[in-house]
Amino acid sequence: MQSFQPPERTLMGPGPSDVHPRVLAAMARPTIGHLDPAFQTFMEELKAGLRAAFKTENALTIPVSAPGSAGMETCFANLVEPGDTVVICQNGVFGGRMRENVTRAGGNAVMVEAEWGRSIDLDATEAALKDHPEAKILAFVHAETSTGVRADAAALCALARQHDCLSIMDTVTGLGGIPVDVDGWGADAVYSGTQKCLSAPPGLSPVTFSDRAVAVIKARAHPVQSWFLDLTLVMDYWDGAGGRSYHHTAPVNALYGLHEALLMLHEEGLDAAWARHAHMHTALKAGLEAMGLSLLVDAAHRLPQLNAVSVPDSVDEAAIRKFVLERYDLEIGAGLGTLAGKVWRLGLMGQSARPDRVIKCLAALEDALAHQQAPISRGKAIPAAQAALPDDS
Amino acid sequence: MQSFQPPERTLMGPGPSDVHPRVLAAMARPTIGHLDPAFQTFMEELKAGLRAAFKTENALTIPVSAPGSAGMETCFANLVEPGDTVVICQNGVFGGRMRENVTRAGGNAVMVEAEWGRSIDLDATEAALKDHPEAKILAFVHAETSTGVRADAAALCALARQHDCLSIMDTVTGLGGIPVDVDGWGADAVYSGTQKCLSAPPGLSPVTFSDRAVAVIKARAHPVQSWFLDLTLVMDYWDGAGGRSYHHTAPVNALYGLHEALLMLHEEGLDAAWARHAHMHTALKAGLEAMGLSLLVDAAHRLPQLNAVSVPDSVDEAAIRKFVLERYDLEIGAGLGTLAGKVWRLGLMGQSARPDRVIKCLAALEDALAHQQAPISRGKAIPAAQAALPDDS
Repeated sequence: MQSFQPPERTLMGPGPSDVHPRVLAAMARPTIGHLDPAFQTFMEELKAGLRAAFKTENALTIPVSAPGSAGMETCFANLVEPGDTVVICQNGVFGGRMRENVTRAGGNAVMVEAEWGRSIDLDATEAALKDHPEAKILAFVHAETSTGVRADAAALCALARQHDCLSIMDTVTGLGGIPVDVDGWGADAVYSGTQKCLSAPPGLSPVTFSDRAVAVIKARAHPVQSWFLDLTLVMDYWDGAGGRSYHHTAPVNALYGLHEALLMLHEEGLDAAWARHAHMHTALKAGLEAMGLSLLVDAAHRLPQLNAVSVPDSVDEAAIRKFVLERYDLEIGAGLGTLAGKVWRLGLMGQSARPDRVIKCLAALEDALAHQQAPISRGKAIPAAQAALPDDS
Repeated sequence: MQSFQPPERTLMGPGPSDVHPRVLAAMARPTIGHLDPAFQTFMEELKAGLRAAFKTENALTIPVSAPGSAGMETCFANLVEPGDTVVICQNGVFGGRMRENVTRAGGNAVMVEAEWGRSIDLDATEAALKDHPEAKILAFVHAETSTGVRADAAALCALARQHDCLSIMDTVTGLGGIPVDVDGWGADAVYSGTQKCLSAPPGLSPVTFSDRAVAVIKARAHPVQSWFLDLTLVMDYWDGAGGRSYHHTAPVNALYGLHEALLMLHEEGLDAAWARHAHMHTALKAGLEAMGLSLLVDAAHRLPQLNAVSVPDSVDEAAIRKFVLERYDLEIGAGLGTLAGKVWRLGLMGQSARPDRVIKCLAALEDALAHQQAPISRGKAIPAAQAALPDDS
């Protein structure tokens, strides 16, 4: 056993994304106590930074002390009671995970399904809500990391309100990369992750709850089945009014990292960050198409930060990932579930959404495909991407 | 909003403890993917380091991706099914939290209670097990952080086996500070934390499960109510056989820190680390008693790493904590629950169990108490502690 020296990777899979040295340096600052007065000021800043990123005034806006999957569970475990009906839109892995969460909380999941890589049909969703007037919640994935599909979050949140439902939105991969407007959309419970477009290390899950959702939690008939994730207890620690009461020990250094990542987002500006992700996507797409590759998701529903690229026939997709990792220290993602073996997932998230990363990724893919004698056009991808980069990027 | 620069504290409360610069530096190394081949080798080393610390050969020995409270919930949520009876020993805060966990998992909690600050009576525990032959689990806190009481873990684990129960042991504050012998004791499910005697930042919870416990989990009639903490899924990620399957994104950088902390423990040696904690306790106690202060817990059941000190009559205990924080940058802990206002909790955990910390703590306390004209002997504590330090420390 000796100290672990990780290789220097470029992270262009589905997350984690590249972490900026400022964020890494913040994580290495001295640990202080989770009840230290200095930490309490810090917590208020952190909540303000999260509210700005989510575009919300929600009082209950905090980082859950565990990765995004625990943020998902926080939303479902706190809002679903035994017997509740939840309409879930599924067009990838994470809608299926929502179903698991609902079932394990004793709820009834009503699924609205679409093919993986396609968007959720609003009419089908509305029909499900009409068929289930008892539904309490509509849940959907804003940015489906397994496929690269973007949902029409504004329309889905509006549908939920029209049918007197709360909305639960997964924007693990969305936050910081594409517009997220929690208050504008009227989303009720939203969770995200730190290791995608915020470019902090994995381990925390920012969540935000509308006052309407908080009222539902406070009026529960049954205790939340998880003590660790029970927001009626957690909020007493994060809500400074009347002094913070100990619940669990907050992950102090991980929170330092998230704070620095939010500060960097603030310095860049939300609009500029969204534009950067869009521009890098345009450049990557230009390069991929010039090479002869195609994207799985149609342009209208495509996430800029998660690009599912169809694997050409006869190409050994795992060998391509191994090649770019070994020769270029470049991580790209495999397909999940029904898309395993059929796509690569190229992430352009946070610090990985930079011109040098786009060019590196195209160069590495071209090299790897050429080694397999794949039918691609050589020498065209990088000029095409460079031509698509905005002048000020 | 600007970068957060934490004050430089000395952490001698109930945790977090001081984090060594080597561990902080490890946390700041570049993030790599949680499925990276290099990370898989690292994970095997991390599990080996945890097994050495726990003194176990248990295959299922991993860090849960969240703080100690989630480690507790991992044990209860995976082992308790609706209707199960669990005998819980409670003599502080954390036994009460165990009860919450059992109840929320649908189990029946049978409490064996002792006054806070006293040890659990073995005869009373045995009587409860005899009264409840249907009991499936005996749960207890090995190192009660709220009071500083050490349980007779070997005897309690043996009682569990005699009554055909699994044992669940909380050693959040124990691991690395006092002997923990999971295999020797035959403990079945054990959880700890990183921010106590391991001296890594808070955020992870090492757990270990005997093969007997794993068999019970695999034979469950009901799914684990938490998807995030469901070990039947989590173990597919941590068990390298057949490739790691994605469950949730592991907190990569926090794991770097834990790995480095385990390496430091390995370098020092378990026996030496336990001896260091014992010696620092002896020195601190000598100083406290020379000053005229007394410890809450009797010597036979006292944890060296968590010292509950009785607050003298007429002393404003909160003002003392404020004074040492502001003048000395020293964090000490308040009492919890029934001991609020009645004790301070002085931690000697991990990197905080060092001669300079013992002396600093005594100097700061003496200064603070003198400022309140408390009836203490001045000038005696530090020489007494120094006389009690071993020559080689």
